[in-house]
Amino acid sequence: MSSATTTPTKGLEGIVATHSSICYIDGERGILAYRGIDVHELAEHSTFEETCYLLWFGRLPNRNERNDLHARLAEERHLDPAILELLGKAPKSALPMDVLRTAVSALAFYDADEKKNDHEANVRKAIRLTSQIAMIVAAYDRIRKGKPIVDADRSANFLLQLNGAKPSPTAERALDIALILHADHELNASTFAARVTAATLSDMHSAITSAIGALKGPLHGGANEAVFRILETIERDKSDPVAYVRTLLAQKKKIPGFGHRVYHTEDPRATHLRAMSRDLCKSSGQPQWYEMSEKIESFVKAEKNLNANVDFYSASTYHVLGIDEDLFTPVFAVSRISGWSAHVIEQLDDNRLIRPRAEYLGPEYPNRYVAMEKR
Amino acid sequence: MSSATTTPTKGLEGIVATHSSICYIDGERGILAYRGIDVHELAEHSTFEETCYLLWFGRLPNRNERNDLHARLAEERHLDPAILELLGKAPKSALPMDVLRTAVSALAFYDADEKKNDHEANVRKAIRLTSQIAMIVAAYDRIRKGKPIVDADRSANFLLQLNGAKPSPTAERALDIALILHADHELNASTFAARVTAATLSDMHSAITSAIGALKGPLHGGANEAVFRILETIERDKSDPVAYVRTLLAQKKKIPGFGHRVYHTEDPRATHLRAMSRDLCKSSGQPQWYEMSEKIESFVKAEKNLNANVDFYSASTYHVLGIDEDLFTPVFAVSRISGWSAHVIEQLDDNRLIRPRAEYLGPEYPNRYVAMEKR
Repeated sequence: MSSATTTPTKGLEGIVATHSSICYIDGERGILAYRGIDVHELAEHSTFEETCYLLWFGRLPNRNERNDLHARLAEERHLDPAILELLGKAPKSALPMDVLRTAVSALAFYDADEKKNDHEANVRKAIRLTSQIAMIVAAYDRIRKGKPIVDADRSANFLLQLNGAKPSPTAERALDIALILHADHELNASTFAARVTAATLSDMHSAITSAIGALKGPLHGGANEAVFRILETIERDKSDPVAYVRTLLAQKKKIPGFGHRVYHTEDPRATHLRAMSRDLCKSSGQPQWYEMSEKIESFVKAEKNLNANVDFYSASTYHVLGIDEDLFTPVFAVSRISGWSAHVIEQLDDNRLIRPRAEYLGPEYPNRYVAMEKR
Repeated sequence: MSSATTTPTKGLEGIVATHSSICYIDGERGILAYRGIDVHELAEHSTFEETCYLLWFGRLPNRNERNDLHARLAEERHLDPAILELLGKAPKSALPMDVLRTAVSALAFYDADEKKNDHEANVRKAIRLTSQIAMIVAAYDRIRKGKPIVDADRSANFLLQLNGAKPSPTAERALDIALILHADHELNASTFAARVTAATLSDMHSAITSAIGALKGPLHGGANEAVFRILETIERDKSDPVAYVRTLLAQKKKIPGFGHRVYHTEDPRATHLRAMSRDLCKSSGQPQWYEMSEKIESFVKAEKNLNANVDFYSASTYHVLGIDEDLFTPVFAVSRISGWSAHVIEQLDDNRLIRPRAEYLGPEYPNRYVAMEKR
């Protein structure tokens, strides 16, 4: 079997699949940086829109460039009526990530650049999709709750679109920081799915649709929702958080929101999300979500030596921002679209089909075809 | 940078990403086998439905099992009216692969097993999607041409659903063989995209939606359509096929339908498709498509030492079967859904997140955040 006789590295762990100039991760030292700039500095000083610019164009914008991007993102903050209709027709039972995946796939029909796949067209698609995905998530939640869509004051931010009320400056900044922290993470599974898809010279919408499908999984974006389901159960049953998690561990269950394939120390994103969760939970009069999270974190660290990852404190943070738990993963996509699209652009700028091999372990060749009468 | 300091193997060429018991390929000897059974034997003796059984269950069915699967595929040969409405509302300008991707994504809403991800549920989804994808492709073509949908005599075959007339036994068998030949091909890009997506513990519909997005690309499923565009241009302009292709090569253009990353000898699928193309073109009174294909094949072999792959003779074959060229890639999906779904089931039966690393080549860390005033 040509070139495929070596033992597979399951899950491609530690295998270097490509060069990339977008995201630097040092899993030993707990460093995450976009275009070389530490995510801590971005979380402190930057904005999500500026971070998008950094990811797409490789450097921080000057004032004009930042204002231009702001204006372009605002211009694109509208959806074709057919997309709103699609959101309205999705059955009530549908999973929000299935709805988002379908709506983003359908956006291709209405994209002025549907049939273009050059660098400039893909930058335009990146900008468009960043505005559109936020609108889809917000509009879908309004529609399913029978509330009117918050009509596009096109400079509207996501929390206003979602909740219909202007968020406090603290809440607005908290969400913006969360979006910065989730914007990119090198070849995580959804980004890798996007690059594998794009590398056949398929298009941006196909690649982003693949990414959304991958993000849906509980081993990836779905984890923060799973974290909240645990917090919610503990709160509802007035359980002791440590006792509850101890029981889960005794049942050999994995605790969502802990451990990471790449980080062997604290996930640098968790540092910020923990502080945000603490401040927001207190200021919103719901300190219990932070307090039980903290107790679980200490216990899991002591018991299993596992660190909280990006998903653990985003659960309590998003909850107090007024986001329903089944929208946590869609909100992850509202941010990660920036990194996904940057990776698709990078992949297509210097493309090679991504096509590994499998080690065959099935019935030995030649396994003869046997006629029906003899089976 | 943890585990990511080695040089990447671009496109993961020759990297073994997983074990698999589904598909055996020997690229040196030109062997393709499903579950160890040579694709030549299957093309001669088997049917597409039986091949589906082989891919999903790992062995050939006995008579009862085959009849059961036949009945279940027929039962699932219907679409929710909302899917037909979605097909009808897609703009006339939409690309058929974008429509197929969106419709398959939307199928999740109406799937009785939407929230289940166990082995048995995924086998049911595999069966359902195999019938539904064929129906979507046929129904979409009827709808966009303003023709009535061929109403489900649920044992209806694809060519009847598409063309509204019972195909000749030769045509029916030719398509069935083409479906067998396209059913699986190990970790090709679309199957790999499906496995990457499924490996986050996401679901079958997400995985298949990713696969369709990857198949769309001209380096993958899109190639047979590109082949036909060349044949069509030659026919329209009454060009000499060899002179035409010589000009393309002089312009450093790649000729679609030639060469393959895995096969270094003739693609075993091309052998059958060549013979089918010859017979069908002759019997349908359109020998020119085969004749010009053969001339191009000999020339490219002599000039560039490249072999025709699966896409080259499927172009002329599908054309004389009455399939529009922009449906060639969707018809590839009508077949490959069998292999995609077998791979998703196998991935989830023994899952590990697929998450490689990238070698970082961007601005050196730490690249300081500079305040706006100083940029």
